[in-house]
Amino acid sequence: MHTTKGILYLIPSLLDDTTADQILPVEVIKKIHLLRNFIVENERTARRFLIRLGMKEYLDEINFEILDKHTRLEDFSQMVEPLKKGVSLGLITEAGCPGVADPGAEIVAIAHSLNIRVVPFIGPSSILLSLMASGLNGQCFAFHGYLPVKPPARVRRIRLLEEQSRREHMTQIFIEAPYRNHQLFQDLIATLHPNTRLCLAINLTGQEERIITKSVADWKKTRIEFHKQPAVFLFLA
Amino acid sequence: MHTTKGILYLIPSLLDDTTADQILPVEVIKKIHLLRNFIVENERTARRFLIRLGMKEYLDEINFEILDKHTRLEDFSQMVEPLKKGVSLGLITEAGCPGVADPGAEIVAIAHSLNIRVVPFIGPSSILLSLMASGLNGQCFAFHGYLPVKPPARVRRIRLLEEQSRREHMTQIFIEAPYRNHQLFQDLIATLHPNTRLCLAINLTGQEERIITKSVADWKKTRIEFHKQPAVFLFLA
Repeated sequence: MHTTKGILYLIPSLLDDTTADQILPVEVIKKIHLLRNFIVENERTARRFLIRLGMKEYLDEINFEILDKHTRLEDFSQMVEPLKKGVSLGLITEAGCPGVADPGAEIVAIAHSLNIRVVPFIGPSSILLSLMASGLNGQCFAFHGYLPVKPPARVRRIRLLEEQSRREHMTQIFIEAPYRNHQLFQDLIATLHPNTRLCLAINLTGQEERIITKSVADWKKTRIEFHKQPAVFLFLA
Repeated sequence: MHTTKGILYLIPSLLDDTTADQILPVEVIKKIHLLRNFIVENERTARRFLIRLGMKEYLDEINFEILDKHTRLEDFSQMVEPLKKGVSLGLITEAGCPGVADPGAEIVAIAHSLNIRVVPFIGPSSILLSLMASGLNGQCFAFHGYLPVKPPARVRRIRLLEEQSRREHMTQIFIEAPYRNHQLFQDLIATLHPNTRLCLAINLTGQEERIITKSVADWKKTRIEFHKQPAVFLFLA
């Protein structure tokens, strides 16, 4: 059923100031080189990413469509038109994997509804890397995106997630705007049980990568500075 | 604090009969080449994996420790001894990423308790790849491992997960022993609401990769054959 249609490739981008060699398999880079049509979250960073993959000489031939919070449903239908005509597209989001804590799911859903083949490429995901390296339970886990910002709602949410974690032996994973890292960290160590293990995964794949798991009791005795550094938070009660 | 100790590297292995070039970044392969001590789930497949990475000539110098369901807590302490002495170790599980729907979390937890640095390598995860390509919600999702096998408990669990999915807009992800795929698929389409979207991600990264998302109503009209093929199941109510 897919033979005459294009393929929608999902392309993970760099999390940090790293080289493509460090994060993408050779075969993935080769396949990206064959594409001339991209749906991207931000054209400037997508161009920079393709240059890093060695595609500078093709940039003039490349067509970029922008997918961001201003994109409307009718734009999506327009974007998938080339796929219907047999032209393959690459979807690149800002950092990490399209569709996972990043936009892209809507366009993938439309592709499925049109019986268009969707191929995910292997690459870095801060959620997956942090879970692997946390030492917490990877047999059962949940990612919740952002917690509420306001203190009473946030504390209630942390308590609820901790209860569920204890009941189901589930690792709870979430993120925060980096300038609010310390505030969330303080709320976590003030709210969670002293025996709950909390992992901070900071600057994943970057030069200054730090992945540290300690009990909340031990975190209370530790000074950590990660203001404005991208971080993933994980805990297991 | 890490300077004199070894590093515990978490090494994703191949999901399918693919080449290392297709799934691991060049820099990751280079770093694996420098290691001579591995903790592995199965020595035979670990050897085959290292041969594929071009390490055949070093196999005689390599030390393998086995980590499986027979490994006891005192064995773990033994395994991390080289790390304390400044020797780095690579942890390789059977298919996919150590510690994520695979063993490894205990040894990583011990490493953290000893202030040993843990570095996760980028590679394929069937959970992450299937979520990216499902078109379902990647802002909020949970992985549950295996559902209960017995029909009444299983159906109750599916209902519970569907309620939670609707309430929290959460993608539910789980796996099954491949010889029971069809049975689980039948239970899912018989139990879930017709509008719930169900994704089957079959043979990820393999030659016969298929990732298909349809409403349960549409799945009821579709014949699909994936007996004994590794699959991830995802749904969003």
